[in-house]
Amino acid sequence: MSPETADWPTARLCNFIVELDFEQIPQRVVHFAKGLMIDWLGSALAGKGARQVEMIDGFARAMGPADGSSTVIPTRRCTSPYFAAMVNAAASHVVEQDDVHNGSVFHPAAVIFPAVLAVAEAEKKTGREMLTACIAGYEAGIRVGEFLGRSHYETFHTTGTVGTVAAAAAVGKLIGLDASGLNHALGSAGTQAAGLWEFLRDAADSKQLHTARAAANGLFAAYLARDGFRGAAQILEGKKGMAAGMSSDADPARLTDGLGTRWATEETSFKWHASCRHTHPAADALQSLMRREGLGPDDILDVVTHVHQGAIDVLGAVDIPQTVHQAKFSMGTVLGLIAVHDVADLDAFEHHALADARVSRFRSKVRMAFDTEVDSLYPKQWVGKISVTTIDGRKLAARVDEPKGDPGNTLARQELEAKAIRLAEFRGGAAADGMRRCIARIWNLDQAGSVVGIFAEL
Amino acid sequence: MSPETADWPTARLCNFIVELDFEQIPQRVVHFAKGLMIDWLGSALAGKGARQVEMIDGFARAMGPADGSSTVIPTRRCTSPYFAAMVNAAASHVVEQDDVHNGSVFHPAAVIFPAVLAVAEAEKKTGREMLTACIAGYEAGIRVGEFLGRSHYETFHTTGTVGTVAAAAAVGKLIGLDASGLNHALGSAGTQAAGLWEFLRDAADSKQLHTARAAANGLFAAYLARDGFRGAAQILEGKKGMAAGMSSDADPARLTDGLGTRWATEETSFKWHASCRHTHPAADALQSLMRREGLGPDDILDVVTHVHQGAIDVLGAVDIPQTVHQAKFSMGTVLGLIAVHDVADLDAFEHHALADARVSRFRSKVRMAFDTEVDSLYPKQWVGKISVTTIDGRKLAARVDEPKGDPGNTLARQELEAKAIRLAEFRGGAAADGMRRCIARIWNLDQAGSVVGIFAEL
Repeated sequence: MSPETADWPTARLCNFIVELDFEQIPQRVVHFAKGLMIDWLGSALAGKGARQVEMIDGFARAMGPADGSSTVIPTRRCTSPYFAAMVNAAASHVVEQDDVHNGSVFHPAAVIFPAVLAVAEAEKKTGREMLTACIAGYEAGIRVGEFLGRSHYETFHTTGTVGTVAAAAAVGKLIGLDASGLNHALGSAGTQAAGLWEFLRDAADSKQLHTARAAANGLFAAYLARDGFRGAAQILEGKKGMAAGMSSDADPARLTDGLGTRWATEETSFKWHASCRHTHPAADALQSLMRREGLGPDDILDVVTHVHQGAIDVLGAVDIPQTVHQAKFSMGTVLGLIAVHDVADLDAFEHHALADARVSRFRSKVRMAFDTEVDSLYPKQWVGKISVTTIDGRKLAARVDEPKGDPGNTLARQELEAKAIRLAEFRGGAAADGMRRCIARIWNLDQAGSVVGIFAEL
Repeated sequence: MSPETADWPTARLCNFIVELDFEQIPQRVVHFAKGLMIDWLGSALAGKGARQVEMIDGFARAMGPADGSSTVIPTRRCTSPYFAAMVNAAASHVVEQDDVHNGSVFHPAAVIFPAVLAVAEAEKKTGREMLTACIAGYEAGIRVGEFLGRSHYETFHTTGTVGTVAAAAAVGKLIGLDASGLNHALGSAGTQAAGLWEFLRDAADSKQLHTARAAANGLFAAYLARDGFRGAAQILEGKKGMAAGMSSDADPARLTDGLGTRWATEETSFKWHASCRHTHPAADALQSLMRREGLGPDDILDVVTHVHQGAIDVLGAVDIPQTVHQAKFSMGTVLGLIAVHDVADLDAFEHHALADARVSRFRSKVRMAFDTEVDSLYPKQWVGKISVTTIDGRKLAARVDEPKGDPGNTLARQELEAKAIRLAEFRGGAAADGMRRCIARIWNLDQAGSVVGIFAEL
């Protein structure tokens, strides 16, 4: 049952990861991955001081060592790789600005970069080794998410479940596991995979717990495999594996789809608005309609957003948001921010999402309706489709096929850098100057001898 | 949505736990719980030096602090409560001798005692506080297991999933969370709940990982809740909760079944044979038949064990066992040990399960057959029912309604102590003398001022 010679999908995925060589990865994919890293670093810094992050960091301080090789990014204190990965992953997802892959509905950066960076610092890996490992994590994690399908995402928070496997794949690559070892690592990761959407109805803090656990548990699985700890060979596709327990529409062919020719990494979307990705297509469509027609918020009687079922499942839980975080899952609030302030970034959420009566008024004008066409395109394509009735009785419509930040409508280098710097400054995580220097280092990461000190400029 | 006034099942369970007072617990239940603790301590010590435990301990040494308040039992080194709970839980389940609750198919001791002990040492709790917390964990965990039903256990390792919730309930009680805090703790625990049976087919090491993670993650959830970290209120019964994602026959009424009148703790079974509990009823039935009829192994042509579906699901994965651990999940091997050696304890497994040709020969005579009556009584009752054909053509049958160790056929105090001492000595975890003194302390635990130093005698 050695994956080198075996032919089950997980084994083939493991072989791909082990054989992945930096020189074989197209330069545009490497460049794209650097952009993802810059974007992620902004998100991790923006998590500074967030209540949930402070509490998880408090636990890490109480239970972990007081120093170590790996940087807790928001504060730059050092501890062991396990706890650095845990706290950084918690921080990365707080402001809902980290990347997302449409087809898998998976947020790769929030779990992969924290796990890989923490280990890369500890084991003094080069920039190329680190980038290769991150790309391995994206390629594997995205395919695992696609494999588990839409039924998985209905109840499970894919970034928590699949994220555990992705982090194990990435760290396993970084520490040089062979195909058999990597298969064991995925086995130990998949059997730790967890994360339920139930928290969303209560505005609970579980999302940060999910990313924290995914990164740390994936790292744990890879380290255990290095020591010879055995995991299930077919934790993904086996009879009692993840798909058997947590999906009703899993497709094992997705696990190996286009390995080495299709680069899933570069299909990842940058998030432009600071809200749940399910709100973005409609937000872009409303913005385009209001600009086109020259409408203000008070000109609009009601808005129907024609959405896929996943949007209703995730956003339907939030009626009147009680917290800023919950507001990011309120379609009405996001559209209200766009309508009233023409922007739904972090500052807009902080200052206007809950307190601005014009935004709440607009919120009550918005409803979601299931749309067969939008649903049939999802999750490969996230189409924004809205109908608007104006106060003066006109019926208007707008459609956006690729929301801003999607691969076909991606951020320009300047937009990407500006967003990361804005995020770094948001809670004083890092000053603009230091962030600019760190960004420059990341663009040159494939020339770096070792990643140690990579955060020294911050 | 405060659980004090609310009326969802999880909230009622939380209220029960918070109000649970040592003085209200019947003395026979307290006494039974002390027996469970002694039995567990033997199991934890028997895990000493096991490959999986060494690897998890190695990770704990690399990632955790080098000293602390809490004892890693097999070696008596000290570290933080999180890592002590993790390593001790890994150790507790290695030799498959820890307790089990029939109706929930949950091994409570392996996850509850490690989590509670580690925190009790750190927070200098009294013996009564510790016992009350453990009983709270048993009462909650068993009900959560029953609630999730048989469909959950088909794919998920209940001790991993439910164990996380049970550990959070127990630690939450110990550190004095109020009902709202405890509800948050269960929310953060349930959303971390994981553990799949897939590992069994490969003889992988995941079982130890499952108990390790359950104890540590449950502890994590309770500590987070103390700091104000919020979890989902209805992580068990909610629309996107554990039952929604991981069960098709969940019954919320089971969560609160007989709270305060029915003491689930004392329904727990001690394991007599050193194998998967699903093999015990048939093992006892075979032993009784062979003694009754005066048969030796060579007198028997074949054995059919008439079993519940769960036994086929768990044991069906093992054909010819490759490891001692896997042999504990091989019905044929267990019956072979009974037939040839009249005993299936730890020593018998070590020396005869793989190497003894008479045992392998007997193994090939055994098959499992689904039985409607046995299945309908399961999991409340684990009936052993076998048919034997002898070499000379006789058709014989035997039936055991309560396998040895079950509440109605429980271990005598002397048997229980002797078993614990045998386990302690098995790998040199502790010498008999020290173990005897420690056992005496546990029987007097409700008189102890503080549990600190409880392992000093070992």
